[in-house]
Amino acid sequence: MAAKATAKAAVPGRSTSSYSEVQNNRLTVSLSLPSVLKNPFSVVDGPPSSAAGNPGEIGKLFPNLFGQPSVSLLPGHSSGAALNHNLKIGVVLSGGQAPGGHNVISGIFDYLQERTKGSTLYGFRGGPAGIMNCKYVELTADFVYPYRNQGGFDMICSGRDKIETDEQFKQAAETAKKLDLDGIVVIGGDDSNSNACLLAENFRGKGLKTRVIGCPKTIDGDLKSKEVPTSFGFDTACKIYAEMIGNVMIDARSTGKYYHFVRLMGRAASHITLECALQTHPNITIIGEEVAAQKQTLKSVTDYIVGVICKRAKLGYNYGVIVIPEGLIDFIPEVQQLIAELNEILAHDVVDEAGNWKKKLRSQSHELFELLPQAIQEQLLLERDPHGNVQVAKIETEKMLIEMVEAELENKRKEGSYTKHFKGKSHFFGYEGRCGLPSNFDSNYCYALGYGAGALLHTGKTGLISSVGNLGAPIGDWTVGGTALTSLMDVERRHGKFKPVIKKAMVELEGAPFKKFASLREEWTLKNRYFSPGPLQFVGPTSNEINHTLMLELGAKA
Amino acid sequence: MAAKATAKAAVPGRSTSSYSEVQNNRLTVSLSLPSVLKNPFSVVDGPPSSAAGNPGEIGKLFPNLFGQPSVSLLPGHSSGAALNHNLKIGVVLSGGQAPGGHNVISGIFDYLQERTKGSTLYGFRGGPAGIMNCKYVELTADFVYPYRNQGGFDMICSGRDKIETDEQFKQAAETAKKLDLDGIVVIGGDDSNSNACLLAENFRGKGLKTRVIGCPKTIDGDLKSKEVPTSFGFDTACKIYAEMIGNVMIDARSTGKYYHFVRLMGRAASHITLECALQTHPNITIIGEEVAAQKQTLKSVTDYIVGVICKRAKLGYNYGVIVIPEGLIDFIPEVQQLIAELNEILAHDVVDEAGNWKKKLRSQSHELFELLPQAIQEQLLLERDPHGNVQVAKIETEKMLIEMVEAELENKRKEGSYTKHFKGKSHFFGYEGRCGLPSNFDSNYCYALGYGAGALLHTGKTGLISSVGNLGAPIGDWTVGGTALTSLMDVERRHGKFKPVIKKAMVELEGAPFKKFASLREEWTLKNRYFSPGPLQFVGPTSNEINHTLMLELGAKA
Repeated sequence: MAAKATAKAAVPGRSTSSYSEVQNNRLTVSLSLPSVLKNPFSVVDGPPSSAAGNPGEIGKLFPNLFGQPSVSLLPGHSSGAALNHNLKIGVVLSGGQAPGGHNVISGIFDYLQERTKGSTLYGFRGGPAGIMNCKYVELTADFVYPYRNQGGFDMICSGRDKIETDEQFKQAAETAKKLDLDGIVVIGGDDSNSNACLLAENFRGKGLKTRVIGCPKTIDGDLKSKEVPTSFGFDTACKIYAEMIGNVMIDARSTGKYYHFVRLMGRAASHITLECALQTHPNITIIGEEVAAQKQTLKSVTDYIVGVICKRAKLGYNYGVIVIPEGLIDFIPEVQQLIAELNEILAHDVVDEAGNWKKKLRSQSHELFELLPQAIQEQLLLERDPHGNVQVAKIETEKMLIEMVEAELENKRKEGSYTKHFKGKSHFFGYEGRCGLPSNFDSNYCYALGYGAGALLHTGKTGLISSVGNLGAPIGDWTVGGTALTSLMDVERRHGKFKPVIKKAMVELEGAPFKKFASLREEWTLKNRYFSPGPLQFVGPTSNEINHTLMLELGAKA
Repeated sequence: MAAKATAKAAVPGRSTSSYSEVQNNRLTVSLSLPSVLKNPFSVVDGPPSSAAGNPGEIGKLFPNLFGQPSVSLLPGHSSGAALNHNLKIGVVLSGGQAPGGHNVISGIFDYLQERTKGSTLYGFRGGPAGIMNCKYVELTADFVYPYRNQGGFDMICSGRDKIETDEQFKQAAETAKKLDLDGIVVIGGDDSNSNACLLAENFRGKGLKTRVIGCPKTIDGDLKSKEVPTSFGFDTACKIYAEMIGNVMIDARSTGKYYHFVRLMGRAASHITLECALQTHPNITIIGEEVAAQKQTLKSVTDYIVGVICKRAKLGYNYGVIVIPEGLIDFIPEVQQLIAELNEILAHDVVDEAGNWKKKLRSQSHELFELLPQAIQEQLLLERDPHGNVQVAKIETEKMLIEMVEAELENKRKEGSYTKHFKGKSHFFGYEGRCGLPSNFDSNYCYALGYGAGALLHTGKTGLISSVGNLGAPIGDWTVGGTALTSLMDVERRHGKFKPVIKKAMVELEGAPFKKFASLREEWTLKNRYFSPGPLQFVGPTSNEINHTLMLELGAKA
């Protein structure tokens, strides 16, 4: 296989000569480690684990791994068997960027350098496909150095491929054998970690020595559990978005005539929106999970916004800031129903200009369709993905809401219950936040995750996700361990088969962050309690602050 | 006039209790002043001034002010007549927000406190309308304090009204008399400063004692001259946009599959786009002034982008970052022609579905119209302003370009000369940058502008714009003075009358910033020289850096 033989091509890495001063300053910052990682440690097994749901099915899907304990690193000399001192480890980035990924890799690298001298770290390029195609770069001290505390995933880049078919597992096993790998670290979100666990199971089943450890990554913040308190990147991304929202708030108050509708990344869960709300205090925040729980309609969401705008107008405020999650319409049941019906109709019928096709919609869906702004109607009918389906993800929800609010306010104006002029401005904050310089928290958290992953592989663990806890305490007191990935899993039925998945952590309406928000939002709505965090600082009193969501979940009374 | 009697209502200002730590830290930073403002100074007249153009007409329009000298503040005791020590001064913010406005007001306030004890500063609320309606707040030490070094214009808010009719000048004069004003400081852009000069002339003509001094504000950077090296806000806004662009660049390189099209504020001039390019090194930067000078068409701009994308594809880069100014299409002559024809047709004819109306377009305009993406065509035909005109400003140029590039690349693919998949992502960075915490440069520059404006009023000057120079030197060595507003003016003929205007400073294709960009852009296009400034820092080695545009214009060899 000639292609594979040349796969370890020399890849030019970053050069610090093109670094800005802020980037350079971050490079030279020394990272702290939890005390347990600074001294000799032993790995202590917890009790046997189960699954987040359907343990029977999970047990069948993971015969080699199911039930294995989660582990903790504790001070003291290891009594268990560590692997030999010349480890060969691969690392891969999977899925969307999140600030801190480079520090996870730095943490693994430093562990190997400091604890297993003579080891080799390979970086698989372009995500899991790099494992399958054996496309990698050997990570040396010189290569890794420029990426320390830097944003982006470009050290080895990422990808969205999955290793899931027999053929793909076979390819991965070939790579593992070829590189004589003792372990692979998969840095990714819920899907990628589910995959990591399947890979661990597959390798174990095949009798390969290659272990697999996961690391929790996603700015969306929806990969978390008791043992994995947060995914990295969430802290930084929210702080970047909050800086922008805070700026827009001061603009809104200064100009006095615009309603800013800010859509934030987060398709499946609304953690980013909730966190940014806690950081900035917008007048209105829509949380998808609440919309779904209350079975709200697009009309009721619109009416809520319109109601607030009218009340604010009476108080003399003809401006405001409204924050919504990217995935809002996915949370509205009637929209899902309409989309499903549209996909069916578009697949089989002709959309006639006279609109006779609409008769095929159920009455509620028809009503909803007619309520939508014309541009959205056209988008739904015209823009389809390669499978012919409506492209919900392409809908700019914030613009749709602006149009709907505008139309409804026009009605109110005609009735005389609204007398101002509504002007909406739309924003989408997304890509700006995925590759920013990681905050001090993300820098340190990722470094510990990576260093801990190194320790887990060194002690022969597999099928665990690197877990760093007690995050409200000083870094020295952070706990380090590994959580059995199977213990986080449930099954979903897809195409008639059970598929193991780590369930996404949604915003809990009974959780501390939402309750805190719910207790304050009324005040934020009518009074202006805007809070402007300003640009992310790396030195100074607030530079080590942790996001509200995590602190509240840790039990802080903020 | 009962309304006026109550106009000085108690206005609640900001409370620092709702401040973030970064905001609080900025509050307590002490500002530096140029040495000349720290000691006794005298105001020295320069030679008689002329006008930027048509001195004859300017002379007729400003019989009282034309020809007056610009002035410099020099160390030493004033030999001229200073006004008495109990000054009553008003200040007004005019036009769009720019970081640093609050510091101009703080500078005026501190001057009055420190040099003219017992003076009063009034803040006119909501822009020039506040002068006409005598709507103001008395600015006390407690009221002003929370706004120091803070973004926004909300201390007194701004507005876009103009004082230009006889009736409006009369209203302004009434306010000046009512409040017994010795002077007014107008903080605004080119238009607002033109207006300030008319107000100065009008008051002088009426024999009022009220003097008027302007201050150069606009993030767009298009109010500048030899004597007024930069407008405040430009520095901060560009740094905020550059942070975001830098993040997006790392994302582009990490993901490897998106072309990010970033539209930046700046309708009339492309300074922001040029500065952000110098700060971040995008693959493609479109400068409106160059497009206009080369009489480029929309097709040629599209072809240029498509050409670069194809070349990059051959080098293995299927991603990139493209930066364009908000006002791009205003710079393309054929688009202007099309818009003019459309306005004419829409005013008089029916737009029939069959498209017969298009026969009324000239052939070149017809061709251009057909080239436009459908959504843009519809927008041009459907969305009109209250005067029935096409709303050019509403066109999202970056999205239009993405669609046009996509269509052209599809042609190339059919020809076989392009084999990749193009995915464009659109961004607009605007409102995020207008109200950020001012950079150290803007904080200090604005404070000096305000303090200097106080000095100019104290020494009885009128019709000048506060001018702080030698900005490449340490703050202590900055020069302070006032430039005769009439010397910056030319006339434009509008509705058969001469109207005095400060000409907008466009990007000079022979100027140092553009030449620097032009010398580097080819390298940026095909090699990736992305530069990521990171978030604005207020302490540390780079926190006092000044934007490239200004440094290059000052003659720095960067």
